[in-house]
Amino acid sequence: MDQKTNKNLSSIMVIFGGTGDLTRRKLMPALYNLVYDDLLPEHFAIVSVGRRDIDRKEYIDSVYKALKEFSRNEILDEHWARLKECIYYYQLEFNDKDRYKDLKVFLDELDKEKHTGGNRAYYLAVAPDYFQTIVKGLDSSGLSKKEGSSWNRLIIEKPFGKDLKTARELNNSLLDVYTEEDIYRIDHYLGKEMIQNIMILRFTNPVFTALWSNKYIDNIQITIAEDKGIGTRGNYYEESGALRDMVQNHILQTLSLVAMEAPVSLTMDAIRNEKQKVIQAIEKFTPEKLRDNVVFGQYDKGLIKGEPVIAYREEENVDPKSNIETFVALKMHINNFRWYGTPFYVRTGKRLGVNQAEIVVQFKALPNILYFEQTSQEPNLLVIRIQPKVGMRMYFNTKDFQTHNDIISMPMETSYESPTQGNTPEAYERLIYDMLRGDATLFSRWDEVESAWILAEPIIKYRESKEQNFPNYHAGSMGPLKAFELLANDGRKWWNI
Amino acid sequence: MDQKTNKNLSSIMVIFGGTGDLTRRKLMPALYNLVYDDLLPEHFAIVSVGRRDIDRKEYIDSVYKALKEFSRNEILDEHWARLKECIYYYQLEFNDKDRYKDLKVFLDELDKEKHTGGNRAYYLAVAPDYFQTIVKGLDSSGLSKKEGSSWNRLIIEKPFGKDLKTARELNNSLLDVYTEEDIYRIDHYLGKEMIQNIMILRFTNPVFTALWSNKYIDNIQITIAEDKGIGTRGNYYEESGALRDMVQNHILQTLSLVAMEAPVSLTMDAIRNEKQKVIQAIEKFTPEKLRDNVVFGQYDKGLIKGEPVIAYREEENVDPKSNIETFVALKMHINNFRWYGTPFYVRTGKRLGVNQAEIVVQFKALPNILYFEQTSQEPNLLVIRIQPKVGMRMYFNTKDFQTHNDIISMPMETSYESPTQGNTPEAYERLIYDMLRGDATLFSRWDEVESAWILAEPIIKYRESKEQNFPNYHAGSMGPLKAFELLANDGRKWWNI
Repeated sequence: MDQKTNKNLSSIMVIFGGTGDLTRRKLMPALYNLVYDDLLPEHFAIVSVGRRDIDRKEYIDSVYKALKEFSRNEILDEHWARLKECIYYYQLEFNDKDRYKDLKVFLDELDKEKHTGGNRAYYLAVAPDYFQTIVKGLDSSGLSKKEGSSWNRLIIEKPFGKDLKTARELNNSLLDVYTEEDIYRIDHYLGKEMIQNIMILRFTNPVFTALWSNKYIDNIQITIAEDKGIGTRGNYYEESGALRDMVQNHILQTLSLVAMEAPVSLTMDAIRNEKQKVIQAIEKFTPEKLRDNVVFGQYDKGLIKGEPVIAYREEENVDPKSNIETFVALKMHINNFRWYGTPFYVRTGKRLGVNQAEIVVQFKALPNILYFEQTSQEPNLLVIRIQPKVGMRMYFNTKDFQTHNDIISMPMETSYESPTQGNTPEAYERLIYDMLRGDATLFSRWDEVESAWILAEPIIKYRESKEQNFPNYHAGSMGPLKAFELLANDGRKWWNI
Repeated sequence: MDQKTNKNLSSIMVIFGGTGDLTRRKLMPALYNLVYDDLLPEHFAIVSVGRRDIDRKEYIDSVYKALKEFSRNEILDEHWARLKECIYYYQLEFNDKDRYKDLKVFLDELDKEKHTGGNRAYYLAVAPDYFQTIVKGLDSSGLSKKEGSSWNRLIIEKPFGKDLKTARELNNSLLDVYTEEDIYRIDHYLGKEMIQNIMILRFTNPVFTALWSNKYIDNIQITIAEDKGIGTRGNYYEESGALRDMVQNHILQTLSLVAMEAPVSLTMDAIRNEKQKVIQAIEKFTPEKLRDNVVFGQYDKGLIKGEPVIAYREEENVDPKSNIETFVALKMHINNFRWYGTPFYVRTGKRLGVNQAEIVVQFKALPNILYFEQTSQEPNLLVIRIQPKVGMRMYFNTKDFQTHNDIISMPMETSYESPTQGNTPEAYERLIYDMLRGDATLFSRWDEVESAWILAEPIIKYRESKEQNFPNYHAGSMGPLKAFELLANDGRKWWNI
């Protein structure tokens, strides 16, 4: 996989928001680790664009500090030297149109110096309010133009709008300047190793392929639980809530990978077509369905790891009467032949009792004969662990060798943390690397984003339409009581693995 | 499961061959461990019958020594005291008819003293030559008679004859005295925890139940490999060979549990009916089949764990030109709807490179599309480990998180040796306990034994009919080359897990 010298990867990556949190915590560590794994192209430059008035040396020093704090690999002099020589800083106010032309001059010169062949990746690591401003700047200055056979890509982070209408507006304004195939919408969840592994697990293992349908699966549960609160992101979160922040993107992306049909090939469009079909097949949320199949929650004060934490309404920049949800649980039906009758339960929330994401596939029970005539049966479960640990676990029934006679449920499991497997690369490493290669498989296509908004919007509107009885769960719990009732009403339960 | 005070288990267990190897190594340790696990009936006595002229104290001392050497649990004073008070020794020449009457007097008195309700279990832990002699003695002295509602059982160890004819003769002579339901034919392999677990794994787990047929399974491999040679058992082995010693009983019993249909209930006859059907469905070995589907081997000198060991023909009490097989590999077809087209490969041998028994279920490959267009695929494997370690392992394909892109095969696995599972009870504990309860599920019924002989006899005759090119494998290897070709000819291989 040594593509380091592949000419097509030579490029300048321009990061708007170069002094921001995302760059510090994720992008720079990812770039460093690409150096570490010998995956950074030979001809490469990183130009961080920010409003702050600092020089290159100051900026590089700040990157070094960030790497020390956030890199998954040790900072070795040799690798740091390689990264350092790639890094430049360029001061620019995003709405100062004229300066984009100066930036172009700077980049064109750098391009010659670094032999990056005119290839450009513009990474918008900024608040979404700036997306349109920056794209206009790129357009008017000619920065967005491809020259010769070079490529020119735009990378944006969610949120892609705050509802269907604004998402479409944003998208249209991007399409004025870039074609769909040059727009890379990052859902960093898709970069997670175990999320990428879902397709491999499903389509390279006959044992899973055979079982993967409503014939054998009783229900599927997807949980993305965070013990963190909203931290300093009160402003953002008050506009977002769990539905926009997690469900409309990460949860639906994960769900579509779990539920999709086998694609006709591994090309990015074949895969994204199948994912898109899953989202489209999800049964629409009518007002009645919303009442019975959706649970909203907002955290009250409580204890996280034994320490008291404040309620959402007491957080910085949050309305003391905020109606925003920090928790959602949903029951969904996918109305196609594979999944008809097998519900998908999803939940996500802040300030929950655990910090983990996982998928639980619960298999259907056997008839109550033979071993189950007198004793109750535990279902077979396949657990796909996404974070913080990655791994697989399968619960099956076996003899209890202790008692000679009882049957107990026990897991087979992997440990991907074993030395042979190393530590897993961060999502952003994968995504930056794929973007440089022009592989958009792990990025969201517009029609996927649009379908997700079409699905999510009525739920968001429903939540906004009436005052919720918030707060309704204590920090450190697993969400409101109603989230448990959602499954209990179906004779099921959330599996806490 | 506290059946200690269950009146029906009160009994005297009479062990013929009380000073022999089996009693020392297996039966006494098993009885001690039943005490340890609080499973020994409250009213119970053990009368060891032997030819040696020793007194009770001497005998008990020898048992204590044996326990120290062979018990899986520590010898605690309290438990040993309990076992010791149960143990008696009775000197008797097996062919001295008159002495059986004396034994009856002794047992009747002991029965009153111990309140064992007239229940008797006669365990023939002696060479098979003595079976008929002892049973006649039991008959003529009235020892085999049930009194009132008491029970009277006969337990015998393999070999059950040395071919179909002698097996039938032996069986008829036993049936002159005992009814089929009172005869317990021990195949200690059936007492192994993981062998018992096969049915539980298959019939309590929907994931396995769904996959368990020729639709998903490419082939099944059963290996019982021993690194031991024949030791001091040259006389026995020269009459037996691997086919009689392992295939006709342990291998076929294991195979039938793996391949059987779900029984109509968990009663012993329902289970044994289904096992019997499997043996009957195995495609007969015609002369042509024998040539292509059977491989015999005999070990030459070699290295076991780095130490040189002698050839079979050099072993004590072995003919220097012996034609006896110490290794067999067989390819079998089960001609029923579940297994048509899915071969079963079995192999067993002495002086092999490993000492382990396991079942490997190899699942069919997926089509060579998607991930397998360019790369080859590893099959999914389910490995059931029988000994020395017990456990389950499932090999599946997953992303290699190290390389970002490769797909590798890796196992999920259990560890039954974890502290919560304790050490597993020896087969004999289970079998003695079941016999006392009158549960013959794990013992061989006559028609099973007979079917196994019908199947095995032509193979044995075929081996005996011509001089084999022995020795043909080195001690410490995995058997003769032809055993590998047996699978290679089908485009398969033995999985060495």
